[in-house]
This record gives sequence, C-alpha cells and structure tokens, in this order.
Amino acid sequence: MAALTDTPIQDLYPDDFAHCFGCGRSNSHGHRLKSHVRGESVLAHFTPEPHHMSVPGFVYGGLLASLADCHAMATAAAAEMTAAPNASEGPAPRYVTAALHIDYLKPTPLGVELEITGQLKEQSERKKVITVTISAQGVITVRAEAVAVRIPKSMV
Amino acid sequence: MAALTDTPIQDLYPDDFAHCFGCGRSNSHGHRLKSHVRGESVLAHFTPEPHHMSVPGFVYGGLLASLADCHAMATAAAAEMTAAPNASEGPAPRYVTAALHIDYLKPTPLGVELEITGQLKEQSERKKVITVTISAQGVITVRAEAVAVRIPKSMV
Repeated sequence: MAALTDTPIQDLYPDDFAHCFGCGRSNSHGHRLKSHVRGESVLAHFTPEPHHMSVPGFVYGGLLASLADCHAMATAAAAEMTAAPNASEGPAPRYVTAALHIDYLKPTPLGVELEITGQLKEQSERKKVITVTISAQGVITVRAEAVAVRIPKSMV
Repeated sequence: MAALTDTPIQDLYPDDFAHCFGCGRSNSHGHRLKSHVRGESVLAHFTPEPHHMSVPGFVYGGLLASLADCHAMATAAAAEMTAAPNASEGPAPRYVTAALHIDYLKPTPLGVELEITGQLKEQSERKKVITVTISAQGVITVRAEAVAVRIPKSMV
C-alpha cells in the first residue's frame, strides 16, 4: 500500500473513535500505539513498561494481544484508505475486531523495543483479514491474524 | 473438576510466578484477576475501569483477550490440580499460553461486572485446550479458546 502520509493512522481516527485504551490519542491511561504506513506494510514500535510482565523478564501475553489487535485495525484502515481512488489523508475509517488469533512462538523479552508489522492478507466487501508479527531484537516472537470489520453504525 | 479450595488459583502460584500483569498478586499495576474452581468450571468476575474502553460505552478488546488468557491458564492449572491423585491446595502449576483465539461475538458493555468461565476441553501430556466465555448481564459477548502448556524450565 502506498504511504499517503506520515501521520499515524490512529491520529486520523475521528474524535469519537479516539478513546481506545490500546491506541486512542484521547485515552490518557492507554498505550497510545502509533501505526505508520511503510510501503506494503504498516509498522509500529512499542516498548512495554517493566510492570507489563508475565513472568519476570518477559512480556505479558495480554499486552501482546492488545498491540496486535490495535495494529491490525489500523492496518485495515490504512488498506482501505490507500485503495480509495481519491486517497486522502483522513479521516481514517474505524474497524473493530471480529476475531483475533495469536500464536505465541517464543517468550517476548521485556526491556527492549518491539517492532509490530501488519499486512492485508485478504478482503471482502464486509471484512479484511490482517496478519501481524511482533519482533524483539529481530526475532519474531508472535504471529497474529485478525478479522477486521467496519464499525457498525450502532454498537448495540 | 472438584473444588479443592476457595482460594483463587492465582493465589496458589509460586511467588516467582505471581507477577503477571493480568493476574499476579504481586503486580500492583495489574488487573489481579482471581479465578475460582466451581464444579466443572472455573469462574471469575471482573469490572473494567472506565478507561478500559474501545469506543465510548464498550470494553477494549485487548482487555477481554487478557482476561480470557489469564483465566484460561488458571483453568489449566485447576484441571491439573483437581486430577491429581493427591490433590492438594497448592502450589498451583504455572501454565503459559501457546495460542489464543478470541471471537468477539458482540460489543461488551462498560460499567458492568463481567463473568468469565473456563472449562477444560481436551488435553494431552504436553498441553491443555481451554474454552472461555465472557458474559455481561447474562449475555455471552466473547468466546475464546487457549492452548496452555506447562511453563518451560527455562523461558529462553
């Protein structure tokens, strides 16, 4: 996908959808993940806090699932934006997660910056399937796949 | 599985494995999920904080994945403990997540207590497959399945 902008995808979400604990710019308690279009991929970096541990020295799997989830939704938004005939710099469409699968390939070490990549695997009119990897020091420790759907007009 | 004790499974983990952000009694920043054996199931309750949102009014999917993950590992530990010929009150064996699959069936409302159930689905010598549901106000909003393996002697 072509890079439209260097603005993180999450900073292009409408204000109403900018409160996500994982990636919302308006959630002061959250992780504020930032995902950038880079060629055919979407890329993010994140350094877990010391308390984000599972067992001492290793990152908590719930955080890794969270990062994969938010990054996958940003990748889906980026794929839609870059495919549009009149691709613009925003606002970004907001996707939500229908399903998430995580394979924890190896323990992920704490104390280093993680690299998170996202790619569009397949899509239909209603959904996009996104693959995500998380790497620490050049080694992929997590592979994930998410099914992203456009946010419904009403959540209830 | 027979209830051995009313002590939460996580409070039976050895001190070295009690730091998990999701469920460790020794992580003052974490969620401190508590899972109890109840008949054939393992049960937990958790009320997300207002900032644990995805979009206003609904729980962040990363938190739901985290709760499912930690509860599944507790369910695996409980299954091993209750199956032992000399079942005791602890310490609980520590399992880690090899894979986690989450289906977000409906948006999960914020502001109410969630009920989390875990059941052993199948097992082999090396792993246990655990199913988890998360319900809000009696409605199942999340179904999850986790593959749990006994923590390796060395994580690296």
